[in-house]
Amino acid sequence: MYPESLENLIECFKYLPGIGEKTAERLAFSVLEMSDERVDYFQESIKSAKTFIHSCPICNVLTDQEQCNICSSDVRDDSLLCVVEDPKSVFLFEKLGMFKGRYHVVKGLISPKEGIQPEDIELGKLIERIKNANFKEIILAFRPSIEGETTSLYIKRILGDLNIKISKIASGIPIGADMEYIDAMTLERALLDRKNVE
Amino acid sequence: MYPESLENLIECFKYLPGIGEKTAERLAFSVLEMSDERVDYFQESIKSAKTFIHSCPICNVLTDQEQCNICSSDVRDDSLLCVVEDPKSVFLFEKLGMFKGRYHVVKGLISPKEGIQPEDIELGKLIERIKNANFKEIILAFRPSIEGETTSLYIKRILGDLNIKISKIASGIPIGADMEYIDAMTLERALLDRKNVE
Repeated sequence: MYPESLENLIECFKYLPGIGEKTAERLAFSVLEMSDERVDYFQESIKSAKTFIHSCPICNVLTDQEQCNICSSDVRDDSLLCVVEDPKSVFLFEKLGMFKGRYHVVKGLISPKEGIQPEDIELGKLIERIKNANFKEIILAFRPSIEGETTSLYIKRILGDLNIKISKIASGIPIGADMEYIDAMTLERALLDRKNVE
Repeated sequence: MYPESLENLIECFKYLPGIGEKTAERLAFSVLEMSDERVDYFQESIKSAKTFIHSCPICNVLTDQEQCNICSSDVRDDSLLCVVEDPKSVFLFEKLGMFKGRYHVVKGLISPKEGIQPEDIELGKLIERIKNANFKEIILAFRPSIEGETTSLYIKRILGDLNIKISKIASGIPIGADMEYIDAMTLERALLDRKNVE
């Protein structure tokens, strides 16, 4: 019903996550209203991002350099390693600006239910890196879930005989949340992990 | 903070209407996960849509042909002209499949408040077309609003001395709507335009 090249563009937008029919149409129409320069820039950005962005060979963070900025930096704390489940988590921590150590991105979380084994998420590379470095603490920053827990326990077991502190980020009630809307598992965890008021 | 080419892509997505920071990031990351073929297809679709889609010289509908399919068709009803405020409205009517006449797209609606005059929306082209054709009825299908009303009245006045019926689509309570959520202006219009129960 739309001209073919418009139909194709709508289909491309619909392929993106969380974009439905109506939104895809709106986005495609907005492209038609852009200046020629803007359209060139948009399509070149897509091509460049796909061409130049790859995983850092050391930590798996996304980068367009040979090694990522964090691995290349000589002002980061070499005693701390934060292990996350996807490259995006690194950017979230960096936005926060609080953590000054190194990162390692594993490729997802162990999930027996979905048949994801330790070798699928390349834990070997992480273990190897830890054994060859001098980290004093490994901070596991996975999302609180059965998969996150399983992956944490597995890493803890493998690294058990090395003299390294292994911690995980706290889970509990988010700051500012309405108690009414907190799920039972989070509430249970918050209760179990209660802290002394000091 | 993100690698530059990823940052650029996020910025491009953020430039699209209704796409905020978080969504733009999600979309950009999804591009990185696409296959190379998919990425090529996406960026070529953007380029093609912008290159080949233009306004039909007769009715202003978007097309990738010299003239749009509707103007080129010889099975449409030449006695009916539906005037809409943007190309998208034509596709909405065509999806419905009920209207078999011709269309004309004006470039927006007259708005004294925003300084949009009749000449800005190229009403001259519409008037010229009507004078040179044999339409029996002009259906104005603008969104119900002060601007829609102003534009309708202006067209009605200009065409007053031609012997052509000028109608506009009905406004009122949408089918299936909850009365509680209907705004006062719509309710007032629905009351004023009440019809005999037959």
